Amino acid sequence: MSPVDKEAFADLKFDAQGLIPAIVQSISGRVLMMAWMSEESLRMTLEIGETVFFSRSRSEIWHKGKASGNTQKVQKIEFDCDGDVLLIQVLESGPACHTGSESCFDVETLFIAEDTE
Amino acid sequence: MSPVDKEAFADLKFDAQGLIPAIVQSISGRVLMMAWMSEESLRMTLEIGETVFFSRSRSEIWHKGKASGNTQKVQKIEFDCDGDVLLIQVLESGPACHTGSESCFDVETLFIAEDTE
Repeated sequence: MSPVDKEAFADLKFDAQGLIPAIVQSISGRVLMMAWMSEESLRMTLEIGETVFFSRSRSEIWHKGKASGNTQKVQKIEFDCDGDVLLIQVLESGPACHTGSESCFDVETLFIAEDTE
Repeated sequence: MSPVDKEAFADLKFDAQGLIPAIVQSISGRVLMMAWMSEESLRMTLEIGETVFFSRSRSEIWHKGKASGNTQKVQKIEFDCDGDVLLIQVLESGPACHTGSESCFDVETLFIAEDTE
């Protein structure tokens, strides 16, 4: 792994629960999922080069794909102007979603504008 | 606007504060920002066809671009397998970020993998 920008890391803002939302995007451009990271899971992500999240429902660190094999290799981590959202570009080795879909957003559509179809 | 899928709307899960995260993506594929929507701001979004958020810091509804002119015309709204994150594709009429950048994620990079460059 290339060195992390330590000054940039210090600019990150974790919420009252110590978490930050992480948007995961395939290098194809498809948004795959959004999950939460703790400072520890972000450090693990940087250490191993694969996404590691914090499960709010189970209150535990979760290495994505450790069980299923569908890991996400981190290509780039950006964060937004407020420092409170991460955008992570990944190379995925399988479906992001537990349903077997490429993206967790493949499931349901709330609205499609008429002029796009 | 085309009709909203009312059954899909009922599947959405707002958090304890009545909010849901909304990832905003340009039809170019670039992720522009993440902000929060209340049920009311989501209904307004669907009504006017432009993104309307809920500002957690100001505790108020916020029609993106109302002041700056940099509105976001909604093309598609998807949500994830848990029903607790929105992904909104938009046609933007100007920069998404208050800094003047196209994307709120143009500002800082925490990490870039060596094999991507």
